[in-house]
Amino acid sequence: MRTAADFPMNKKEKPIGIFDSGIGGLTVLKEIFRELPFENTVYLGDTARVPYGIRSPETVTRYSFENARFLISEDIKLLVIACNTASSVSLDAIRRSVPVPVLGVIKPGARAAVSCSKNKKIGVIGTEATIKSSSYTRAIKEVDGDVEVFSLACPLFVPLVEEGWSEGRIAEMIAETYLNNIRDKCVDTLVLGCTHYPLLKNVITKVMSETVTLIDSAVETAGEVKNVLNELSLRRTGPDDAVHKFYVTDSTERFVSVGENFLGRKIDFIKKIEMEMEV
Amino acid sequence: MRTAADFPMNKKEKPIGIFDSGIGGLTVLKEIFRELPFENTVYLGDTARVPYGIRSPETVTRYSFENARFLISEDIKLLVIACNTASSVSLDAIRRSVPVPVLGVIKPGARAAVSCSKNKKIGVIGTEATIKSSSYTRAIKEVDGDVEVFSLACPLFVPLVEEGWSEGRIAEMIAETYLNNIRDKCVDTLVLGCTHYPLLKNVITKVMSETVTLIDSAVETAGEVKNVLNELSLRRTGPDDAVHKFYVTDSTERFVSVGENFLGRKIDFIKKIEMEMEV
Repeated sequence: MRTAADFPMNKKEKPIGIFDSGIGGLTVLKEIFRELPFENTVYLGDTARVPYGIRSPETVTRYSFENARFLISEDIKLLVIACNTASSVSLDAIRRSVPVPVLGVIKPGARAAVSCSKNKKIGVIGTEATIKSSSYTRAIKEVDGDVEVFSLACPLFVPLVEEGWSEGRIAEMIAETYLNNIRDKCVDTLVLGCTHYPLLKNVITKVMSETVTLIDSAVETAGEVKNVLNELSLRRTGPDDAVHKFYVTDSTERFVSVGENFLGRKIDFIKKIEMEMEV
Repeated sequence: MRTAADFPMNKKEKPIGIFDSGIGGLTVLKEIFRELPFENTVYLGDTARVPYGIRSPETVTRYSFENARFLISEDIKLLVIACNTASSVSLDAIRRSVPVPVLGVIKPGARAAVSCSKNKKIGVIGTEATIKSSSYTRAIKEVDGDVEVFSLACPLFVPLVEEGWSEGRIAEMIAETYLNNIRDKCVDTLVLGCTHYPLLKNVITKVMSETVTLIDSAVETAGEVKNVLNELSLRRTGPDDAVHKFYVTDSTERFVSVGENFLGRKIDFIKKIEMEMEV
Protein backbone atom coordinates (compact mmCIF):
# COMPACT_ATOMS: atom_id res chain seq x y z
CA MET A 1 0.00 0.00 0.00
CA ARG A 2 1.36 3.39 -0.97
CA THR A 3 1.27 6.13 1.64
CA ALA A 4 0.94 9.87 1.46
CA ALA A 5 4.70 10.21 1.79
CA ASP A 6 5.15 8.58 -1.62
CA PHE A 7 3.36 11.46 -3.30
CA PRO A 8 4.82 14.95 -3.28
CA MET A 9 2.20 17.65 -2.78
CA ASN A 10 2.06 18.68 -6.40
CA LYS A 11 0.70 15.29 -7.40
CA LYS A 12 -2.65 16.49 -6.12
CA GLU A 13 -2.61 19.14 -8.84
CA LYS A 14 -2.49 16.53 -11.58
CA PRO A 15 -5.79 15.94 -13.32
CA ILE A 16 -8.07 12.92 -13.13
CA GLY A 17 -8.20 11.30 -16.59
CA ILE A 18 -11.55 9.96 -17.80
CA PHE A 19 -12.32 8.27 -21.08
CA ASP A 20 -15.47 6.99 -22.72
CA SER A 21 -16.46 5.89 -26.22
CA GLY A 22 -18.31 9.17 -26.65
CA ILE A 23 -20.56 11.44 -24.61
CA GLY A 24 -21.99 8.80 -22.27
CA GLY A 25 -19.11 9.11 -19.80
CA LEU A 26 -20.13 12.71 -19.12
CA THR A 27 -22.60 11.24 -16.62
CA VAL A 28 -19.56 10.04 -14.64
CA LEU A 29 -17.73 13.35 -15.09
CA LYS A 30 -20.76 15.28 -13.85
CA GLU A 31 -20.84 13.20 -10.67
CA ILE A 32 -17.10 13.74 -10.24
CA PHE A 33 -17.68 17.50 -10.53
CA ARG A 34 -20.35 17.19 -7.83
CA GLU A 35 -18.34 14.99 -5.46
CA LEU A 36 -14.91 16.53 -6.09
CA PRO A 37 -15.38 20.13 -7.21
CA PHE A 38 -11.71 21.11 -6.90
CA GLU A 39 -10.24 18.38 -9.08
CA ASN A 40 -8.62 19.14 -12.41
CA THR A 41 -9.94 16.78 -15.09
CA VAL A 42 -9.13 15.61 -18.62
CA TYR A 43 -11.96 13.89 -20.50
CA LEU A 44 -11.44 11.96 -23.73
CA GLY A 45 -14.48 10.96 -25.82
CA ASP A 46 -13.61 8.61 -28.69
CA THR A 47 -16.41 9.98 -30.85
CA ALA A 48 -14.82 8.89 -34.14
CA ARG A 49 -15.25 5.25 -33.12
CA VAL A 50 -18.33 5.29 -30.89
CA PRO A 51 -20.20 3.03 -30.08
CA TYR A 52 -18.03 0.38 -28.40
CA GLY A 53 -20.95 -1.81 -27.30
CA ILE A 54 -21.34 -3.50 -30.70
CA ARG A 55 -17.64 -4.32 -31.17
CA SER A 56 -15.50 -7.35 -30.34
CA PRO A 57 -13.51 -7.45 -27.06
CA GLU A 58 -10.23 -7.27 -29.02
CA THR A 59 -11.23 -4.09 -30.82
CA VAL A 60 -12.60 -2.45 -27.67
CA THR A 61 -9.39 -3.35 -25.82
CA ARG A 62 -7.26 -1.88 -28.62
CA TYR A 63 -9.24 1.36 -28.53
CA SER A 64 -9.07 1.48 -24.72
CA PHE A 65 -5.30 1.14 -24.76
CA GLU A 66 -5.00 4.02 -27.20
CA ASN A 67 -7.27 6.15 -25.03
CA ALA A 68 -5.36 5.28 -21.86
CA ARG A 69 -2.04 6.02 -23.50
CA PHE A 70 -3.26 9.43 -24.58
CA LEU A 71 -4.48 10.31 -21.09
CA ILE A 72 -1.26 9.10 -19.50
CA SER A 73 0.57 11.52 -21.80
CA GLU A 74 -1.54 14.25 -20.17
CA ASP A 75 0.16 13.38 -16.84
CA ILE A 76 -2.93 12.28 -14.94
CA LYS A 77 -2.93 11.02 -11.33
CA LEU A 78 -5.81 8.55 -11.72
CA LEU A 79 -7.57 6.97 -14.70
CA VAL A 80 -11.33 6.39 -14.83
CA ILE A 81 -12.72 4.15 -17.56
CA ALA A 82 -16.15 5.77 -17.68
CA CYS A 83 -17.57 3.30 -20.19
CA ASN A 84 -19.19 0.05 -19.15
CA THR A 85 -18.12 -1.80 -22.29
CA ALA A 86 -14.47 -0.74 -22.03
CA SER A 87 -14.46 -1.41 -18.25
CA SER A 88 -15.95 -4.86 -18.89
CA VAL A 89 -13.39 -6.08 -21.39
CA SER A 90 -10.21 -4.07 -20.85
CA LEU A 91 -9.91 -2.89 -17.23
CA ASP A 92 -7.52 -5.59 -16.02
CA ALA A 93 -5.21 -5.26 -19.01
CA ILE A 94 -5.11 -1.47 -18.74
CA ARG A 95 -4.49 -1.64 -15.00
CA ARG A 96 -1.45 -3.84 -15.56
CA SER A 97 0.06 -1.49 -18.09
CA VAL A 98 -0.33 2.07 -16.78
CA PRO A 99 1.55 3.74 -13.90
CA VAL A 100 -1.51 5.23 -12.14
CA PRO A 101 -4.52 3.75 -10.30
CA VAL A 102 -7.31 2.71 -12.69
CA LEU A 103 -11.03 2.62 -11.82
CA GLY A 104 -13.81 1.19 -13.94
CA VAL A 105 -17.57 1.52 -13.54
CA ILE A 106 -18.40 -2.17 -13.04
CA LYS A 107 -17.25 -2.88 -9.48
CA PRO A 108 -18.73 0.27 -7.89
CA GLY A 109 -22.08 -0.56 -9.58
CA ALA A 110 -21.92 -4.21 -8.54
CA ARG A 111 -21.15 -3.38 -4.91
CA ALA A 112 -23.96 -0.84 -4.70
CA ALA A 113 -26.41 -3.34 -6.23
CA VAL A 114 -25.54 -6.06 -3.71
CA SER A 115 -25.91 -3.71 -0.76
CA CYS A 116 -29.33 -2.53 -2.05
CA SER A 117 -30.85 -5.88 -2.88
CA LYS A 118 -32.97 -7.54 -0.18
CA ASN A 119 -34.23 -10.56 -2.11
CA LYS A 120 -30.83 -11.26 -3.70
CA LYS A 121 -32.22 -11.09 -7.22
CA ILE A 122 -30.43 -8.45 -9.29
CA GLY A 123 -31.01 -7.47 -12.92
CA VAL A 124 -28.28 -5.99 -15.13
CA ILE A 125 -28.86 -4.25 -18.45
CA GLY A 126 -26.15 -3.01 -20.82
CA THR A 127 -24.74 -3.12 -24.34
CA GLU A 128 -24.20 -6.40 -26.18
CA ALA A 129 -20.45 -6.37 -25.41
CA THR A 130 -20.94 -5.62 -21.69
CA ILE A 131 -23.54 -8.34 -21.21
CA LYS A 132 -21.59 -10.88 -23.27
CA SER A 133 -18.52 -10.26 -21.10
CA SER A 134 -20.47 -11.27 -17.93
CA SER A 135 -18.41 -8.67 -16.09
CA TYR A 136 -21.29 -7.54 -13.84
CA THR A 137 -22.33 -11.09 -13.02
CA ARG A 138 -18.77 -11.92 -12.00
CA ALA A 139 -18.35 -8.71 -9.99
CA ILE A 140 -21.68 -9.23 -8.18
CA LYS A 141 -20.91 -12.88 -7.40
CA GLU A 142 -17.52 -11.88 -6.01
CA VAL A 143 -19.28 -9.67 -3.48
CA ASP A 144 -22.01 -12.19 -2.68
CA GLY A 145 -22.07 -15.63 -4.25
CA ASP A 146 -25.70 -16.20 -3.27
CA VAL A 147 -27.12 -13.46 -5.46
CA GLU A 148 -28.98 -14.49 -8.59
CA VAL A 149 -28.12 -12.24 -11.55
CA PHE A 150 -30.33 -11.79 -14.61
CA SER A 151 -28.63 -9.86 -17.39
CA LEU A 152 -29.89 -8.54 -20.70
CA ALA A 153 -28.54 -6.53 -23.62
CA CYS A 154 -30.67 -3.58 -24.76
CA PRO A 155 -28.96 -2.43 -28.00
CA LEU A 156 -31.62 0.13 -28.96
CA PHE A 157 -31.37 2.12 -25.71
CA VAL A 158 -28.22 4.04 -26.72
CA PRO A 159 -29.49 5.20 -30.14
CA LEU A 160 -32.82 6.01 -28.54
CA VAL A 161 -31.14 8.33 -26.03
CA GLU A 162 -28.87 9.76 -28.72
CA GLU A 163 -31.97 10.58 -30.78
CA GLY A 164 -33.42 12.41 -27.79
CA TRP A 165 -36.44 10.10 -27.54
CA SER A 166 -35.91 9.22 -23.87
CA GLU A 167 -39.56 9.68 -22.97
CA GLY A 168 -42.84 8.83 -24.67
CA ARG A 169 -44.67 5.91 -26.19
CA ILE A 170 -41.86 4.59 -28.40
CA ALA A 171 -39.32 4.56 -25.55
CA GLU A 172 -41.89 2.82 -23.36
CA MET A 173 -42.65 0.13 -25.92
CA ILE A 174 -38.97 -0.58 -26.51
CA ALA A 175 -38.31 -0.73 -22.74
CA GLU A 176 -41.36 -2.96 -22.31
CA THR A 177 -40.12 -5.35 -24.99
CA TYR A 178 -36.64 -5.62 -23.50
CA LEU A 179 -37.47 -5.60 -19.80
CA ASN A 180 -40.47 -7.94 -19.77
CA ASN A 181 -38.22 -10.88 -19.17
CA ILE A 182 -36.23 -9.37 -16.32
CA ARG A 183 -39.40 -8.11 -14.62
CA ASP A 184 -40.72 -11.65 -14.54
CA LYS A 185 -37.70 -12.70 -12.45
CA CYS A 186 -38.86 -10.45 -9.58
CA VAL A 187 -35.55 -8.61 -9.24
CA ASP A 188 -35.63 -5.85 -6.60
CA THR A 189 -32.54 -4.06 -7.97
CA LEU A 190 -31.58 -3.21 -11.55
CA VAL A 191 -28.08 -2.08 -12.56
CA LEU A 192 -28.10 0.47 -15.39
CA GLY A 193 -24.92 -0.95 -16.89
CA CYS A 194 -24.38 1.68 -19.56
CA THR A 195 -23.69 5.36 -19.03
CA HIS A 196 -26.56 6.35 -21.34
CA TYR A 197 -29.24 4.45 -19.47
CA PRO A 198 -29.79 6.82 -16.51
CA LEU A 199 -31.41 9.15 -19.07
CA LEU A 200 -34.11 6.47 -19.48
CA LYS A 201 -34.75 6.25 -15.72
CA ASN A 202 -38.37 7.41 -15.92
CA VAL A 203 -39.32 4.96 -18.64
CA ILE A 204 -37.46 2.08 -16.99
CA THR A 205 -39.11 2.80 -13.63
CA LYS A 206 -42.52 2.85 -15.30
CA VAL A 207 -41.91 -0.57 -16.84
CA MET A 208 -40.15 -2.19 -13.86
CA SER A 209 -42.29 -0.61 -11.08
CA GLU A 210 -41.22 1.91 -8.45
CA THR A 211 -40.27 -0.79 -5.97
CA VAL A 212 -37.22 -1.76 -8.03
CA THR A 213 -34.07 0.21 -7.12
CA LEU A 214 -32.12 1.47 -10.13
CA ILE A 215 -28.33 1.57 -9.71
CA ASP A 216 -26.60 4.38 -11.59
CA SER A 217 -22.95 3.39 -11.92
CA ALA A 218 -21.91 7.00 -12.59
CA VAL A 219 -22.90 7.98 -9.04
CA GLU A 220 -21.21 4.92 -7.53
CA THR A 221 -18.03 5.43 -9.53
CA ALA A 222 -17.64 9.07 -8.49
CA GLY A 223 -17.90 7.94 -4.86
CA GLU A 224 -15.20 5.36 -5.49
CA VAL A 225 -12.94 7.98 -7.10
CA LYS A 226 -13.26 10.08 -3.95
CA ASN A 227 -12.44 7.12 -1.72
CA VAL A 228 -9.35 6.20 -3.69
CA LEU A 229 -8.05 9.78 -3.83
CA ASN A 230 -8.58 10.14 -0.09
CA GLU A 231 -6.85 6.85 0.59
CA LEU A 232 -3.84 7.82 -1.52
CA SER A 233 -3.80 11.40 -0.21
CA LEU A 234 -4.18 12.58 -3.79
CA ARG A 235 -7.32 14.63 -3.32
CA ARG A 236 -7.22 18.27 -4.32
CA THR A 237 -9.34 20.31 -1.90
CA GLY A 238 -8.87 23.82 -3.29
CA PRO A 239 -8.56 26.54 -4.47
CA ASP A 240 -11.63 26.91 -6.70
CA ASP A 241 -9.74 27.19 -9.98
CA ALA A 242 -9.90 23.64 -11.36
CA VAL A 243 -9.22 23.24 -15.08
CA HIS A 244 -11.38 20.92 -17.18
CA LYS A 245 -10.01 19.79 -20.52
CA PHE A 246 -11.89 17.86 -23.16
CA TYR A 247 -10.57 15.89 -26.12
CA VAL A 248 -12.61 14.16 -28.83
CA THR A 249 -11.61 12.10 -31.86
CA ASP A 250 -14.33 13.45 -34.18
CA SER A 251 -15.41 17.06 -34.66
CA THR A 252 -15.91 19.12 -31.50
CA GLU A 253 -19.14 20.82 -32.59
CA ARG A 254 -21.78 18.33 -31.52
CA PHE A 255 -19.88 17.33 -28.40
CA VAL A 256 -19.77 20.92 -27.18
CA SER A 257 -23.49 21.53 -27.66
CA VAL A 258 -24.60 18.24 -26.09
CA GLY A 259 -21.88 18.39 -23.42
CA GLU A 260 -22.50 21.97 -22.26
CA ASN A 261 -26.19 21.29 -22.10
CA PHE A 262 -25.73 18.11 -20.10
CA LEU A 263 -23.02 19.37 -17.75
CA GLY A 264 -24.72 22.73 -17.25
CA ARG A 265 -21.44 24.60 -17.67
CA LYS A 266 -19.34 26.00 -20.49
CA ILE A 267 -16.67 23.87 -22.14
CA ASP A 268 -13.71 26.24 -22.45
CA PHE A 269 -11.03 23.86 -23.60
CA ILE A 270 -11.78 21.25 -26.26
CA LYS A 271 -9.58 19.82 -28.97
CA LYS A 272 -9.94 17.18 -31.66
CA ILE A 273 -7.17 14.59 -31.73
CA GLU A 274 -6.51 11.67 -34.05
CA MET A 275 -5.57 8.38 -32.59
CA GLU A 276 -2.78 6.30 -34.06
CA MET A 277 -3.68 2.65 -34.46
CA GLU A 278 -1.00 0.04 -34.38
CA VAL A 279 -1.00 -2.42 -37.25
CA MET B 1 -13.09 8.23 -73.25
CA ARG B 2 -11.10 5.07 -72.79
CA THR B 3 -11.71 2.24 -75.27
CA ALA B 4 -11.44 -1.51 -75.05
CA ALA B 5 -7.99 -1.38 -76.60
CA ASP B 6 -6.68 0.41 -73.52
CA PHE B 7 -7.42 -2.61 -71.39
CA PRO B 8 -5.65 -5.92 -71.98
CA MET B 9 -7.98 -8.93 -71.65
CA ASN B 10 -6.80 -9.92 -68.21
CA LYS B 11 -8.10 -6.69 -66.75
CA LYS B 12 -11.53 -8.31 -66.89
CA GLU B 13 -10.31 -10.86 -64.38
CA LYS B 14 -9.58 -8.22 -61.79
CA PRO B 15 -12.17 -7.96 -59.04
CA ILE B 16 -14.69 -5.23 -58.41
CA GLY B 17 -13.87 -3.56 -55.07
CA ILE B 18 -16.76 -2.60 -52.81
CA PHE B 19 -16.61 -0.94 -49.42
CA ASP B 20 -19.15 -0.01 -46.82
CA SER B 21 -19.05 1.03 -43.18
CA GLY B 22 -20.30 -2.42 -42.21
CA ILE B 23 -22.80 -4.97 -43.43
CA GLY B 24 -25.21 -2.56 -45.15
CA GLY B 25 -23.29 -2.58 -48.43
CA LEU B 26 -24.06 -6.28 -48.79
CA THR B 27 -27.37 -5.15 -50.32
CA VAL B 28 -25.29 -3.64 -53.16
CA LEU B 29 -23.06 -6.71 -53.39
CA LYS B 30 -26.09 -9.00 -53.61
CA GLU B 31 -27.45 -7.00 -56.54
CA ILE B 32 -24.02 -7.11 -58.20
CA PHE B 33 -24.06 -10.91 -57.80
CA ARG B 34 -27.47 -10.97 -59.46
CA GLU B 35 -26.62 -8.59 -62.32
CA LEU B 36 -23.03 -9.72 -62.89
CA PRO B 37 -22.71 -13.33 -61.73
CA PHE B 38 -19.25 -13.89 -63.24
CA GLU B 39 -17.46 -10.98 -61.62
CA ASN B 40 -14.75 -11.47 -59.02
CA THR B 41 -15.38 -9.24 -56.02
CA VAL B 42 -13.59 -7.92 -52.92
CA TYR B 43 -15.81 -6.51 -50.20
CA LEU B 44 -14.49 -4.47 -47.29
CA GLY B 45 -16.77 -3.79 -44.29
CA ASP B 46 -15.27 -1.30 -41.82
CA THR B 47 -17.03 -2.95 -38.90
CA ALA B 48 -14.57 -1.61 -36.28
CA ARG B 49 -15.72 1.94 -37.04
CA VAL B 50 -19.35 1.50 -38.12
CA PRO B 51 -21.61 3.52 -38.24
CA TYR B 52 -20.43 6.36 -40.47
CA GLY B 53 -23.76 8.20 -40.54
CA ILE B 54 -23.22 9.88 -37.16
CA ARG B 55 -19.67 11.16 -37.90
CA SER B 56 -18.28 14.38 -39.32
CA PRO B 57 -17.51 14.64 -43.07
CA GLU B 58 -13.77 14.87 -42.30
CA THR B 59 -13.74 11.64 -40.34
CA VAL B 60 -15.89 9.78 -42.90
CA THR B 61 -13.58 11.01 -45.68
CA ARG B 62 -10.51 9.84 -43.77
CA TYR B 63 -12.03 6.40 -43.26
CA SER B 64 -13.11 6.23 -46.92
CA PHE B 65 -9.59 6.99 -48.11
CA GLU B 66 -8.18 4.21 -45.98
CA ASN B 67 -10.80 1.79 -47.29
CA ALA B 68 -10.16 2.81 -50.92
CA ARG B 69 -6.41 2.49 -50.45
CA PHE B 70 -6.81 -1.02 -49.12
CA LEU B 71 -9.01 -2.11 -52.02
CA ILE B 72 -6.65 -0.56 -54.55
CA SER B 73 -3.92 -2.71 -53.04
CA GLU B 74 -6.12 -5.70 -53.95
CA ASP B 75 -5.72 -4.70 -57.62
CA ILE B 76 -9.35 -3.98 -58.37
CA LYS B 77 -10.68 -2.78 -61.75
CA LEU B 78 -13.53 -0.67 -60.40
CA LEU B 79 -14.38 0.77 -56.97
CA VAL B 80 -17.93 0.92 -55.61
CA ILE B 81 -18.60 3.04 -52.53
CA ALA B 82 -21.58 1.03 -51.31
CA CYS B 83 -22.37 3.37 -48.45
CA ASN B 84 -24.59 6.40 -48.81
CA THR B 85 -22.77 8.42 -46.17
CA ALA B 86 -19.31 7.78 -47.64
CA SER B 87 -20.62 8.39 -51.17
CA SER B 88 -22.19 11.63 -50.04
CA VAL B 89 -19.12 13.19 -48.50
CA SER B 90 -16.08 11.54 -50.09
CA LEU B 91 -16.85 10.33 -53.63
CA ASP B 92 -15.30 13.25 -55.51
CA ALA B 93 -12.13 13.25 -53.44
CA ILE B 94 -11.69 9.49 -53.79
CA ARG B 95 -12.37 9.68 -57.53
CA ARG B 96 -9.57 12.21 -57.95
CA SER B 97 -7.08 10.08 -56.10
CA VAL B 98 -7.46 6.49 -57.29
CA PRO B 99 -6.46 4.99 -60.67
CA VAL B 100 -9.75 3.13 -61.34
CA PRO B 101 -13.32 4.24 -62.07
CA VAL B 102 -15.29 4.99 -58.89
CA LEU B 103 -19.06 4.64 -58.47
CA GLY B 104 -21.15 5.78 -55.54
CA VAL B 105 -24.75 5.03 -54.69
CA ILE B 106 -26.12 8.59 -54.82
CA LYS B 107 -26.28 9.35 -58.55
CA PRO B 108 -27.85 6.05 -59.61
CA GLY B 109 -30.52 6.51 -56.92
CA ALA B 110 -31.12 10.14 -57.86
CA ARG B 111 -31.51 9.34 -61.57
CA ALA B 112 -33.94 6.49 -60.89
CA ALA B 113 -35.99 8.72 -58.61
CA VAL B 114 -36.31 11.48 -61.20
CA SER B 115 -37.37 9.05 -63.90
CA CYS B 116 -40.02 7.50 -61.60
CA SER B 117 -41.54 10.68 -60.24
CA LYS B 118 -44.58 12.05 -62.06
CA ASN B 119 -45.49 14.93 -59.75
CA LYS B 120 -41.86 16.03 -59.36
CA LYS B 121 -41.99 15.77 -55.58
CA ILE B 122 -39.33 13.40 -54.27
CA GLY B 123 -38.56 12.41 -50.70
CA VAL B 124 -35.12 11.30 -49.53
CA ILE B 125 -34.38 9.56 -46.23
CA GLY B 126 -30.92 8.68 -44.92
CA THR B 127 -28.45 9.01 -42.06
CA GLU B 128 -27.70 12.36 -40.44
CA ALA B 129 -24.45 12.74 -42.38
CA THR B 130 -26.04 11.87 -45.74
CA ILE B 131 -28.94 14.28 -45.29
CA LYS B 132 -26.72 17.05 -43.92
CA SER B 133 -24.49 16.76 -47.00
CA SER B 134 -27.47 17.48 -49.34
CA SER B 135 -25.86 15.09 -51.81
CA TYR B 136 -29.16 13.61 -53.01
CA THR B 137 -30.80 16.99 -53.36
CA ARG B 138 -27.89 18.21 -55.50
CA ALA B 139 -27.80 15.03 -57.59
CA ILE B 140 -31.57 15.13 -58.19
CA LYS B 141 -31.52 18.84 -59.08
CA GLU B 142 -28.69 18.20 -61.53
CA VAL B 143 -30.92 15.76 -63.40
CA ASP B 144 -34.02 17.94 -63.20
CA GLY B 145 -33.94 21.37 -61.61
CA ASP B 146 -37.74 21.53 -61.37
CA VAL B 147 -38.04 18.67 -58.88
CA GLU B 148 -38.88 19.55 -55.28
CA VAL B 149 -36.85 17.46 -52.83
CA PHE B 150 -37.86 16.82 -49.21
CA SER B 151 -35.14 15.16 -47.18
CA LEU B 152 -35.10 13.76 -43.69
CA ALA B 153 -32.62 11.98 -41.41
CA CYS B 154 -33.92 8.83 -39.69
CA PRO B 155 -31.13 7.93 -37.22
CA LEU B 156 -33.00 5.11 -35.49
CA PHE B 157 -33.62 3.10 -38.68
CA VAL B 158 -30.13 1.56 -38.80
CA PRO B 159 -30.04 0.32 -35.18
CA LEU B 160 -33.63 -0.89 -35.62
CA VAL B 161 -32.61 -3.04 -38.58
CA GLU B 162 -29.43 -4.17 -36.81
CA GLU B 163 -31.56 -5.30 -33.86
CA GLY B 164 -33.71 -7.34 -36.26
CA TRP B 165 -36.88 -5.38 -35.45
CA SER B 166 -37.70 -4.51 -39.08
CA GLU B 167 -41.37 -5.39 -38.72
CA GLY B 168 -43.97 -4.88 -36.04
CA ARG B 169 -45.52 -2.17 -33.94
CA ILE B 170 -42.30 -0.50 -32.74
CA ALA B 171 -40.87 -0.23 -36.26
CA GLU B 172 -44.20 1.16 -37.46
CA MET B 173 -44.36 3.80 -34.74
CA ILE B 174 -40.80 4.93 -35.38
CA ALA B 175 -41.44 5.09 -39.15
CA GLU B 176 -44.69 6.94 -38.51
CA THR B 177 -42.91 9.53 -36.34
CA TYR B 178 -40.17 10.15 -38.87
CA LEU B 179 -42.16 9.96 -42.11
CA ASN B 180 -45.25 11.96 -41.11
CA ASN B 181 -43.65 15.12 -42.34
CA ILE B 182 -42.56 13.78 -45.73
CA ARG B 183 -45.94 12.13 -46.30
CA ASP B 184 -47.61 15.52 -45.89
CA LYS B 185 -45.55 16.85 -48.82
CA CYS B 186 -47.36 14.43 -51.20
CA VAL B 187 -44.16 12.96 -52.65
CA ASP B 188 -44.81 10.17 -55.17
CA THR B 189 -41.26 8.78 -54.91
CA LEU B 190 -39.08 8.10 -51.86
CA VAL B 191 -35.35 7.40 -52.09
CA LEU B 192 -34.15 4.91 -49.46
CA GLY B 193 -30.83 6.71 -49.06
CA CYS B 194 -29.15 4.20 -46.77
CA THR B 195 -28.26 0.62 -47.58
CA HIS B 196 -30.07 -0.65 -44.47
CA TYR B 197 -33.42 0.89 -45.32
CA PRO B 198 -34.64 -1.58 -47.97
CA LEU B 199 -35.06 -4.02 -45.07
CA LEU B 200 -37.76 -1.66 -43.75
CA LYS B 201 -39.63 -1.58 -47.08
CA ASN B 202 -42.83 -3.14 -45.71
CA VAL B 203 -43.09 -0.76 -42.80
CA ILE B 204 -42.22 2.28 -44.91
CA THR B 205 -44.79 1.33 -47.55
CA LYS B 206 -47.42 0.92 -44.87
CA VAL B 207 -46.74 4.42 -43.54
CA MET B 208 -46.25 6.16 -46.90
CA SER B 209 -49.00 4.29 -48.87
CA GLU B 210 -48.56 1.87 -51.74
CA THR B 211 -48.79 4.63 -54.32
CA VAL B 212 -45.35 5.96 -53.37
CA THR B 213 -42.48 4.35 -55.31
CA LEU B 214 -39.52 3.36 -53.14
CA ILE B 215 -36.10 3.69 -54.77
CA ASP B 216 -33.54 1.12 -53.63
CA SER B 217 -30.13 2.53 -54.47
CA ALA B 218 -28.53 -0.92 -54.25
CA VAL B 219 -30.50 -2.08 -57.31
CA GLU B 220 -29.76 1.10 -59.23
CA THR B 221 -26.05 1.02 -58.39
CA ALA B 222 -25.63 -2.58 -59.57
CA GLY B 223 -27.21 -1.56 -62.89
CA GLU B 224 -24.74 1.32 -63.14
CA VAL B 225 -21.80 -0.99 -62.39
CA LYS B 226 -22.91 -3.17 -65.31
CA ASN B 227 -23.19 -0.17 -67.63
CA VAL B 228 -19.74 1.13 -66.77
CA LEU B 229 -18.09 -2.27 -67.12
CA ASN B 230 -19.77 -2.76 -70.50
CA GLU B 231 -18.75 0.68 -71.63
CA LEU B 232 -15.12 0.11 -70.66
CA SER B 233 -15.12 -3.48 -71.98
CA LEU B 234 -14.17 -4.62 -68.50
CA ARG B 235 -17.04 -7.03 -67.94
CA ARG B 236 -16.22 -10.61 -67.10
CA THR B 237 -18.76 -12.93 -68.76
CA GLY B 238 -17.47 -16.35 -67.65
CA PRO B 239 -16.49 -18.97 -66.70
CA ASP B 240 -18.60 -19.66 -63.61
CA ASP B 241 -15.71 -19.65 -61.13
CA ALA B 242 -15.80 -16.13 -59.69
CA VAL B 243 -13.98 -15.58 -56.38
CA HIS B 244 -15.58 -13.48 -53.65
CA LYS B 245 -13.32 -12.15 -50.92
CA PHE B 246 -14.43 -10.39 -47.77
CA TYR B 247 -12.45 -8.24 -45.38
CA VAL B 248 -13.65 -6.70 -42.13
CA THR B 249 -11.95 -4.48 -39.56
CA ASP B 250 -13.58 -6.08 -36.50
CA SER B 251 -14.03 -9.79 -35.75
CA THR B 252 -15.30 -11.95 -38.61
CA GLU B 253 -17.78 -13.98 -36.56
CA ARG B 254 -20.89 -11.81 -36.65
CA PHE B 255 -20.24 -10.66 -40.21
CA VAL B 256 -20.15 -14.25 -41.46
CA SER B 257 -23.41 -15.26 -39.80
CA VAL B 258 -25.33 -12.15 -40.86
CA GLY B 259 -23.65 -12.06 -44.28
CA GLU B 260 -24.22 -15.69 -45.24
CA ASN B 261 -27.81 -15.44 -44.16
CA PHE B 262 -28.39 -12.27 -46.15
CA LEU B 263 -26.47 -13.26 -49.29
CA GLY B 264 -27.87 -16.79 -49.28
CA ARG B 265 -24.43 -18.27 -49.95
CA LYS B 266 -21.39 -19.37 -48.02
CA ILE B 267 -18.57 -16.92 -47.30
CA ASP B 268 -15.43 -18.95 -48.02
CA PHE B 269 -12.80 -16.23 -47.77
CA ILE B 270 -12.93 -13.70 -44.96
CA LYS B 271 -10.14 -11.97 -43.10
CA LYS B 272 -9.89 -9.35 -40.39
CA ILE B 273 -7.57 -6.47 -41.18
CA GLU B 274 -6.48 -3.46 -39.14
CA MET B 275 -6.44 -0.10 -40.75
CA GLU B 276 -3.60 2.30 -40.15
CA MET B 277 -4.71 5.81 -39.40
CA GLU B 278 -2.48 8.68 -40.28
CA VAL B 279 -1.81 11.16 -37.54
